[in-house]
Amino acid sequence: MEVKEALLQRRSVRRFTDEPVAREAIEALLHAAMSGPSACNKKPWHFCVVTNPEKLGELKSASHFTKINAPLAVVVCGDLHRALPLQLSEFWVQDCSAATENILLRAVDLGLGAVWCGIYPQKRPQATVRKALGLSESFVPLNIIYIGHPDEQPEARDQYDAARVRYVE
Amino acid sequence: MEVKEALLQRRSVRRFTDEPVAREAIEALLHAAMSGPSACNKKPWHFCVVTNPEKLGELKSASHFTKINAPLAVVVCGDLHRALPLQLSEFWVQDCSAATENILLRAVDLGLGAVWCGIYPQKRPQATVRKALGLSESFVPLNIIYIGHPDEQPEARDQYDAARVRYVE
Repeated sequence: MEVKEALLQRRSVRRFTDEPVAREAIEALLHAAMSGPSACNKKPWHFCVVTNPEKLGELKSASHFTKINAPLAVVVCGDLHRALPLQLSEFWVQDCSAATENILLRAVDLGLGAVWCGIYPQKRPQATVRKALGLSESFVPLNIIYIGHPDEQPEARDQYDAARVRYVE
Repeated sequence: MEVKEALLQRRSVRRFTDEPVAREAIEALLHAAMSGPSACNKKPWHFCVVTNPEKLGELKSASHFTKINAPLAVVVCGDLHRALPLQLSEFWVQDCSAATENILLRAVDLGLGAVWCGIYPQKRPQATVRKALGLSESFVPLNIIYIGHPDEQPEARDQYDAARVRYVE
């Protein structure tokens, strides 16, 4: 799929068929994620790929997506051991957000649907995800991306708003 | 260009030709940015499109990119008046990072080069950008994206690392 088309087709999908996501597709999503930029190329990310039904249930309880029927969740985590020091340490949030957007766009490209469910910096959802996945202290769950074969097809959308732009010429 | 190709071709470009970026291309980049996801679809973003040479010079002094010769800078800002409240307010960083990644990918698609120069949460660079652009308090400069026609062609790159992935099956 063309880049422009994928950008406009990327919409949040919250209803999925029962079909699992093939391992090959999961790996394509992870390649997309890790092709993203990161501050000083630190790549301060870690990805938990969850298909275990019990663990998926625990993740859903971390968010307001309790009834979502996605067969797959990718939990994008910051890896604080790889993050930059001091005032730059929070750059992992930006790096992992770019990686997340790459996953969403590649999902569209593969005919999959997905939705980004924010976790960090909310304290209680972070604790729930951390416990469900047994994450060590150095991994911070940024979000849960629910992914599957879409059972709804939101229309492509252009949200351009000229009021959000200022030209300094 | 195909999504997969754009993902791997997206590399930081820091040397540019003298050719300006056409207005049509700038608008395509902004459409890409605003097609990104945002928490509760708040779209808490604002874009300053800088081609004024004096202002470009002031922006360059905000970063370690003092000698970069890009003819265009897009400063991606969070708009705190549109951000979510309380514990959710920092989601603007994630939303604007996704918008930034969209700009970078669309730039590749258009044959342009770009580099993401992080500003937030560093205090002094923020102040310099704020002053250069006369930003009000509610706009927080997240980054400066320098964009132009590339005068270098970094090779496509796949940074996949299986050690960054854990399967919970």
